[in-house]
Amino acid sequence: MNLRDKTLGFIGTGVMGRSMAGHLIDAGYPMRVYNRSPDKLGPLLEKGAVACRNPAEVAREADVVITMVGYPRDVEQTLLGPDGVLANLRPGGIAIDMTTSSPALARTIANAALRHGVAALDAPVSGGDTGARNAQLSIMVGGEASVFESALPILQCMGKTIVHQGPAGSGQLTKLVNQIAIASTLVGVCEAMAFARRAGLDPLRILSSIERGAAGSVQLSAMAPRMLAGDYAAGFYVKHIVKDLGLALETAREMNLQLPGLEQATRLFEKLSAGGGAEDGTQALFRLYVDAGLV
Amino acid sequence: MNLRDKTLGFIGTGVMGRSMAGHLIDAGYPMRVYNRSPDKLGPLLEKGAVACRNPAEVAREADVVITMVGYPRDVEQTLLGPDGVLANLRPGGIAIDMTTSSPALARTIANAALRHGVAALDAPVSGGDTGARNAQLSIMVGGEASVFESALPILQCMGKTIVHQGPAGSGQLTKLVNQIAIASTLVGVCEAMAFARRAGLDPLRILSSIERGAAGSVQLSAMAPRMLAGDYAAGFYVKHIVKDLGLALETAREMNLQLPGLEQATRLFEKLSAGGGAEDGTQALFRLYVDAGLV
Repeated sequence: MNLRDKTLGFIGTGVMGRSMAGHLIDAGYPMRVYNRSPDKLGPLLEKGAVACRNPAEVAREADVVITMVGYPRDVEQTLLGPDGVLANLRPGGIAIDMTTSSPALARTIANAALRHGVAALDAPVSGGDTGARNAQLSIMVGGEASVFESALPILQCMGKTIVHQGPAGSGQLTKLVNQIAIASTLVGVCEAMAFARRAGLDPLRILSSIERGAAGSVQLSAMAPRMLAGDYAAGFYVKHIVKDLGLALETAREMNLQLPGLEQATRLFEKLSAGGGAEDGTQALFRLYVDAGLV
Repeated sequence: MNLRDKTLGFIGTGVMGRSMAGHLIDAGYPMRVYNRSPDKLGPLLEKGAVACRNPAEVAREADVVITMVGYPRDVEQTLLGPDGVLANLRPGGIAIDMTTSSPALARTIANAALRHGVAALDAPVSGGDTGARNAQLSIMVGGEASVFESALPILQCMGKTIVHQGPAGSGQLTKLVNQIAIASTLVGVCEAMAFARRAGLDPLRILSSIERGAAGSVQLSAMAPRMLAGDYAAGFYVKHIVKDLGLALETAREMNLQLPGLEQATRLFEKLSAGGGAEDGTQALFRLYVDAGLV
């Protein structure tokens, strides 16, 4: 069966979701869309998407429904319960949650899907706005291998690196692994640059000495220049990393695993968020170090 | 004046120093060498180096003396005092300390050099054994610009990225910036891999999802596979990162700068060292997380 015979649904058309749904429409899939703020649907409706009034209405006429919403509670509300996607999908349908959310909730959703005679994948992404716009996302997938295989042509419209990581929840776990690595790396970059500036050195000149060596990282090369320029515009929001690190810590505790570096990074980002930085980009962590006395 | 008319001295011919001194001999410089354990001089003597019995004897007949020793106290003993390099160098000579050492000590040495009518550079390196062997080191230099210029042909025999970072101490400060970034990055890599393994995932498969994205770093790509294989052989010794992070913390305190991520990383490496890991490579930090209860 040609997958383009399938009707897709997309719920959550924010900055990332809009680009991702757009690629699927461009690939020829009929598309039904829902967003809590309907004004964000405009560009997709122009491309031919059908607007729906709620998640159930998306699901009823769709074979595959993708969700890209905000927080685990939004995922829960959208997918579970009598008005949710799972209860209203056609038999054999697939729900793919691409929100960064809780691994435990992903397992709950996969079990609920089974009871409804449908299937679920957890498939969070990394690569940000740019990755979504260029269909270059890394998509980390958890769920049944056969469901992954049948969803792959759809995922390939949105991403470049698409890896089946294991059973339900594994996609979310992989995304949390990613966030754990990023958070401490960014703390290191931030503290390195704070040290350089406080020492009266030229931090950009220092970058020329260190960024191609053992200290090299995407965070160092991408974020250090923004920190130094005082450019705190969001590529990835502080409020979102606070959410993700909270999920990572919660999951680590469930596994009885202590991660002191993650705890430290979470405290720093929470302090930044509480101090008015929630809408800044993650590189604004540098502010904690340049605004004396905050750390 | 052709620099190859100059006689060089090299003090400290361990794994790194031996390769570095070898490149200078290969480039045609007459070379005088000293090492606390004279048995390590063998390969350099075969290349034509002259063995000396102490640092003063190296300095007396040399125009430029390079030191690559262990700890700041070794740097101090080798360079300062009546039997040290500075007191015994010919007028106009240059002492280049390439040990990772204290920025404050580097400034003390530069001032002492002036009083002796000689000059000093602090020029620590990154790139490890491999960088030393292939003359691909990054060399971070502090001191007078004119002295840097005249030493450059010598440094170019040992390194690829050679940057004058500022006045005396700036090379050491830059190296500490490098180590600050590495330490927290490595903590993040370690905790990410510990989380992945504890969650029952395949950590190498996770690397395929995350290592080319925002979590990407030299530490992730180089160290995660060694951690997962239980390969703790030293590229860079735990005892050396403990030294470097101690210097960084001490310097941060002198500047009244709090770096909680660095403090956390230092505690972890110190615990690893105290638990018998001093001679392991830095990636052995992973052991703290797999040996339950240690963190």
